[in-house]
Amino acid sequence: MPTISQKGRSMPESPIRKLVPYAEDAKKRGTKVIHLNIGQPDIKTPQIALDAVKNNTLEVLEYSRTEGSEAYREKLANYYAKNDIHVSATEIIITTGGSEALAFVMGTIMDTDEEIIIPEPFYANYNGFATAAGVTVVPVVSKIEDNFALPPIEEFEKLITPKTKAILICNPGNPTGYLYSREEIEKLAKIVKKHNLFLVADEVYREFTYEGKEHYSVLQVEGLEDNAIVVDSVSKRYSMCGARIGCLVSKNKEVIKTALKFAQARLSPPTYAQIASEAALETPQSYFDDVKVEYVARRNLLISELEKIKGIKVAKPQGAFYCIAQLPIADADHFAQWLLESFELNGETVMVAPAAGFYATEGLGKNQIRIAYVLDKENITRAVQILKAALEVYKG
Amino acid sequence: MPTISQKGRSMPESPIRKLVPYAEDAKKRGTKVIHLNIGQPDIKTPQIALDAVKNNTLEVLEYSRTEGSEAYREKLANYYAKNDIHVSATEIIITTGGSEALAFVMGTIMDTDEEIIIPEPFYANYNGFATAAGVTVVPVVSKIEDNFALPPIEEFEKLITPKTKAILICNPGNPTGYLYSREEIEKLAKIVKKHNLFLVADEVYREFTYEGKEHYSVLQVEGLEDNAIVVDSVSKRYSMCGARIGCLVSKNKEVIKTALKFAQARLSPPTYAQIASEAALETPQSYFDDVKVEYVARRNLLISELEKIKGIKVAKPQGAFYCIAQLPIADADHFAQWLLESFELNGETVMVAPAAGFYATEGLGKNQIRIAYVLDKENITRAVQILKAALEVYKG
Ligand SMILES: Cc1ncc(COP(=O)(O)O)c(C=O)c1O
Ligand SMILES: Cc1ncc(COP(=O)(O)O)c(C=O)c1O
Repeated sequence: MPTISQKGRSMPESPIRKLVPYAEDAKKRGTKVIHLNIGQPDIKTPQIALDAVKNNTLEVLEYSRTEGSEAYREKLANYYAKNDIHVSATEIIITTGGSEALAFVMGTIMDTDEEIIIPEPFYANYNGFATAAGVTVVPVVSKIEDNFALPPIEEFEKLITPKTKAILICNPGNPTGYLYSREEIEKLAKIVKKHNLFLVADEVYREFTYEGKEHYSVLQVEGLEDNAIVVDSVSKRYSMCGARIGCLVSKNKEVIKTALKFAQARLSPPTYAQIASEAALETPQSYFDDVKVEYVARRNLLISELEKIKGIKVAKPQGAFYCIAQLPIADADHFAQWLLESFELNGETVMVAPAAGFYATEGLGKNQIRIAYVLDKENITRAVQILKAALEVYKG
Repeated sequence: MPTISQKGRSMPESPIRKLVPYAEDAKKRGTKVIHLNIGQPDIKTPQIALDAVKNNTLEVLEYSRTEGSEAYREKLANYYAKNDIHVSATEIIITTGGSEALAFVMGTIMDTDEEIIIPEPFYANYNGFATAAGVTVVPVVSKIEDNFALPPIEEFEKLITPKTKAILICNPGNPTGYLYSREEIEKLAKIVKKHNLFLVADEVYREFTYEGKEHYSVLQVEGLEDNAIVVDSVSKRYSMCGARIGCLVSKNKEVIKTALKFAQARLSPPTYAQIASEAALETPQSYFDDVKVEYVARRNLLISELEKIKGIKVAKPQGAFYCIAQLPIADADHFAQWLLESFELNGETVMVAPAAGFYATEGLGKNQIRIAYVLDKENITRAVQILKAALEVYKG
């Protein structure tokens, strides 16, 4: 019998996946499961995007251009200009989700066994893309006590070796909700320039910033043109995760030229989804305003309710729609499973994402969970009540 | 300035891509370019698939399941059963095009520097996926004199080393048009079982077989369950290349389980495209009958016209919609560029794919071109006239 690869064996499994059977069992028992574990917004996709697809007049569903349709990239360049990011259509490659952009970036800038430094906790799939590309993630710890702010730049310095090719940040952060300040980005810019590294910023949550804070992109840093690479996506911005459209943006011509070779191998990004994404750019500002009001309300409700629970510590998110909560327990993996297997309040329980899966350093985050606030306020209120009641009886 | 990876540097460029600027220049001069170089069918997408998307009632364009929607995989299992391939929905992972299935397979079964044997000439992007995964393609030569039949099995034996993990075939073949017989598949089955290898079959052209010949899948070979992996796609079958839906099929549970981890990292395949693909399964048989009649007519016309040209040798395709022609010239790369730069007949010229790009062995295929017969008969006739006239004046 032929055997699968070592690479395949070491591909990480999604930290949530192993809880799925327990959630299914709970549902079978008749318990309602409130999902705090997923990043799939419940917000409606802009009608203009849905309509563009419904009204398409294609007769042959052809491949698009490898780098994405010209018209879409042109309009996307305008979108960036409005966000004070000045790039041309040729500096954008449309990808199949931000996911594919991440995979292209890893292949483009890194060889097998080279290293990429990432502040942890981080989006767990960075591990998957790194493993698939045969490259090594080197974590640098950010702390809940600091709200997951940028670790001191000396901590990065300590980790840089001749194998280091890049620093990757997620801004605003999944799972932290932390929004890096302009000063923090400039510190990173300085260190990558000093060591000739790339600075890759996953900015898929760019639009989701709170308390009047502004997002500052690595593409806005003057003099960082050769180092900066942005990964972006329509998934969260327009609540169209199923489209599978993202992009890779860089002013470094070598990067674009090389990433394009990875893109050529897979031919083209999805055509219907590009129609939707192009139309989505015309979404009225009122849509975003409403969405923001909604997320702010959810966030405020979630945080204030969580903070009422004894022994809980919450990192207050300023962006995205996640937050990390530290619980008065020893093992969030066990707690999350127990919630699904053995607990209910008025016929309901919650599914949370144990945070250990977002850390690369063994042993970190074991008493933390990630909560996604992509539910309406009623569900959030009940979910926190369930968590509170559960913590009161949980024996660990 | 940070530098891109060696991997990125060695990513092959599409063999056609470098001709694109010359084609653009020709068009600018007012010369009409007939494209014999692309595998994008001109056939209409089944109306039932287009309508399903137009009539969708989604309000939130959500991620689908990582492995693809349950309903679609169930129906796909039925489609395979009708083709005498017996698999369950759990043995299928829906991918973003056959392209992504190829990438998943390479990661799942191979580690860096391991080897995969592929009869050449082969689909050029196999090189790209191999390079991206850090694995090595080992070519075994198939010959135009044999119509690109399976090379003698001893030739495979000679190439098998401890690093060999798989044999990959494309059946029917792009760029050869060759359809492997049941006997050939059984020979391959024997050798992979003997050496504990995987047999990966890219069957994206399964439906396109001519002269009453039947396609025989590696999934039909008894006793090959643990070794056989099929890569499939809706792109050509329903002329919906832009959907970006394919799949990976295997009865080997380890393979499915591991490939699913690669799939999880990228979250899900495109949602609209799955709607189209699921509906496409209801395409009436008359659609395929018509398409086949059309391709047979095009193929017969192309082959008979090409054979009239002095000094030309054509491999007669029994499947897919490509054929390789050997020309009385020394360097098809040069010829292809010259056709675009310096030749025209009544204001028209042709763009062909030089075949060297489909060989891994340096120097092979230099006097060959690949022709895709995805054009209507009038265009095919004119294209061959242009080729004939060009060869008469071309000085090499
Ligand atoms: C931080 C981050 N980056 C990238 C992605 C990938 O999203 P997509 O491939 O849908 O664009 C996600 C999705 O949850 C994410 O949270
Ligand atoms: C032999 C072969 N395999 C795979 C593919 C990939 O096709 P897709 O990703 O559109 O399914 C193609 C496309 O031309 C092909 O010719």
